[in-house]
Amino acid sequence: MSAIRYEHIKTCKQSGARLGRIHTPHGVIDTPIFMPVGTQATVKSMTPEELKEINAKIILSNTYHLYMRPGHELVEKAGGLHKFMNWDRAILTDSGGFQVFSLGPLRKITEEGVEFRSHLDGSKHFISPEKAIEIENALGADIIMAFDECAPYPASRDYVKNSLERTTRWAKRCKDAHKYPDRQGLFGIVQGGMYKDLREQSAYEIMELDFPGYAVGGLSVGEPKPLMYEVLEYTTPLLPKDKPRYLMGVGSPDALIEGVIRGIDMFDCVLPTRIARNGTAMTSHGKVVVRNAKYAEDFLPLDPECSCYTCRNYSRAYIRHLVKANEILGARLITYHNLYFLLKLMENVRQAIREDRLLDFRREFFTKYGYEL
Amino acid sequence: MSAIRYEHIKTCKQSGARLGRIHTPHGVIDTPIFMPVGTQATVKSMTPEELKEINAKIILSNTYHLYMRPGHELVEKAGGLHKFMNWDRAILTDSGGFQVFSLGPLRKITEEGVEFRSHLDGSKHFISPEKAIEIENALGADIIMAFDECAPYPASRDYVKNSLERTTRWAKRCKDAHKYPDRQGLFGIVQGGMYKDLREQSAYEIMELDFPGYAVGGLSVGEPKPLMYEVLEYTTPLLPKDKPRYLMGVGSPDALIEGVIRGIDMFDCVLPTRIARNGTAMTSHGKVVVRNAKYAEDFLPLDPECSCYTCRNYSRAYIRHLVKANEILGARLITYHNLYFLLKLMENVRQAIREDRLLDFRREFFTKYGYEL
Repeated sequence: MSAIRYEHIKTCKQSGARLGRIHTPHGVIDTPIFMPVGTQATVKSMTPEELKEINAKIILSNTYHLYMRPGHELVEKAGGLHKFMNWDRAILTDSGGFQVFSLGPLRKITEEGVEFRSHLDGSKHFISPEKAIEIENALGADIIMAFDECAPYPASRDYVKNSLERTTRWAKRCKDAHKYPDRQGLFGIVQGGMYKDLREQSAYEIMELDFPGYAVGGLSVGEPKPLMYEVLEYTTPLLPKDKPRYLMGVGSPDALIEGVIRGIDMFDCVLPTRIARNGTAMTSHGKVVVRNAKYAEDFLPLDPECSCYTCRNYSRAYIRHLVKANEILGARLITYHNLYFLLKLMENVRQAIREDRLLDFRREFFTKYGYEL
Repeated sequence: MSAIRYEHIKTCKQSGARLGRIHTPHGVIDTPIFMPVGTQATVKSMTPEELKEINAKIILSNTYHLYMRPGHELVEKAGGLHKFMNWDRAILTDSGGFQVFSLGPLRKITEEGVEFRSHLDGSKHFISPEKAIEIENALGADIIMAFDECAPYPASRDYVKNSLERTTRWAKRCKDAHKYPDRQGLFGIVQGGMYKDLREQSAYEIMELDFPGYAVGGLSVGEPKPLMYEVLEYTTPLLPKDKPRYLMGVGSPDALIEGVIRGIDMFDCVLPTRIARNGTAMTSHGKVVVRNAKYAEDFLPLDPECSCYTCRNYSRAYIRHLVKANEILGARLITYHNLYFLLKLMENVRQAIREDRLLDFRREFFTKYGYEL
């Protein structure tokens, strides 16, 4: 019995987008969903209670970072990641593959796995598919990801083909190594770069291993957005209808909507939390760089149409002051707002699917947001 | 009619400490009280709601910092400091004197006031008693402080005498400049360094101006604690019984208790918030430097006897991880705990006064805390 089950509710007659639910050991998640990122066992600046206030049902945490610090054995001793960080809703952990491959000259790939040096202290480490799953099993997230190679963009056809075939062999090894399939759902990752036939090859190979969910990997790695949408258009239809589909690393409001229209159910991205700490808010009328001088005497909320805690209580002028003065509360208030904004957007997207009007919703949203279709 | 009224409730029969209430335009404050410091219009890392959760009734904010950034005119335009920072309970602002005098070679003192250079951009500024009150009137705190000179320690008798006499002349100018005595209570500050006769001279000169409250300034500036207690012992009895007494810049648990025993009603200090951001918690059993390696696998709360949000939900191991990883939540959780700890300590102190057993309470607290009487 898999730990993860996808329940399809309906398909939007206007857009083809999916409305559904993912059942996990830590609750039910309405999809499409955006997952806030809690890299180091904390969604930066937020408490679990605040995440619940804004209706977050699942968060992502990063295996590479937790392996490095504080170490997966420590988290396991603490009773697992949920207990360690005081979060009793669902968690997804990535496999660490993306971070390890991003280390560039600090890593060496072989069939067995990846050797790399720590970004913290330069110490030498080796992660194989088996090791990644051992770490993810220790962390205990509800959804865990297979250890894959995310090919860079651009990359040659030969490189991508070799890489995706190794990713398939690694996916098989991950599945074999997985100790708790009844407690943690292991998702496969489809690679294949920007090559249609390679996406098809990868999808069929990965699906043959029969995972309870599938991610589309290797996108949002520097390619133009239209190319990402094109890849999604021919990749998601290959995936089974009765399993959740996860587009990794995407979190801009426009790409979330475009992804949903192309059949995606789950997203994650550091974007809303990262730009918040830099003083930028996502709003119904586009980005507000509240750090800018023009907001110095602006006593409106970040987003006058928003009803979140930040927007109900604080002005742009005050938040700008906090950001300029490097005050923690500035990062807190904007992070809270940005995550609220994206989770509310996804709630509105789900409602639009329910009403078979997601294309209309996209047009209305983009017009106000100032984004060209 | 003064904005501030002190109501004396009782005197501890065992210790002589005072139990009282301060009535302000933004609520009633039970004394003795500790005031968390919100230097830049925010108690670092905390929301106003969290301050209310831990029962803070009054916070302090710094005139010098707000004058520099974002500027008192901006705060006034925002509707005053309460509205700007979304805090509807009482606020006290210092006069900026302490910060300006701390600038050392960057400032020049004359009878008229102090010329200094900004710590932010080196720009030249001049603060006189009239200017300090103009800024404090614009900020709109419930209690505002006279512009004084806090003499350094050690300092010669001549230096201290000249300085306290100028402080008296400045106090008179502050009183004359104060525009809203019915909305903001202006407190006088007694100086005089570590010289008994000069403390007496200062106290009588300042009391002659008839302020609604008095601070003992010029302590906690580097002198040994026993000397501070000695100065308090001969200074507080000089002050009127029907006005609040404020000891500036004191916030260690032992000094709070010793100060209360010597007749003090109000305290402020950055200590609990500053050490929190550095990974140190105040607990019933003394300081816990949670950053230390020995807490890596310690799954107890910061203070097992504490029932604050942090201690109910998080382990030392998790908080240590957050601190080591420079996560904002680490600073948040320890700050919350440290302020809760001090406010709870003051609540216990008030209860001990009520029961005429503050000396017993001190002995019990110090024994557990590991502090020598």
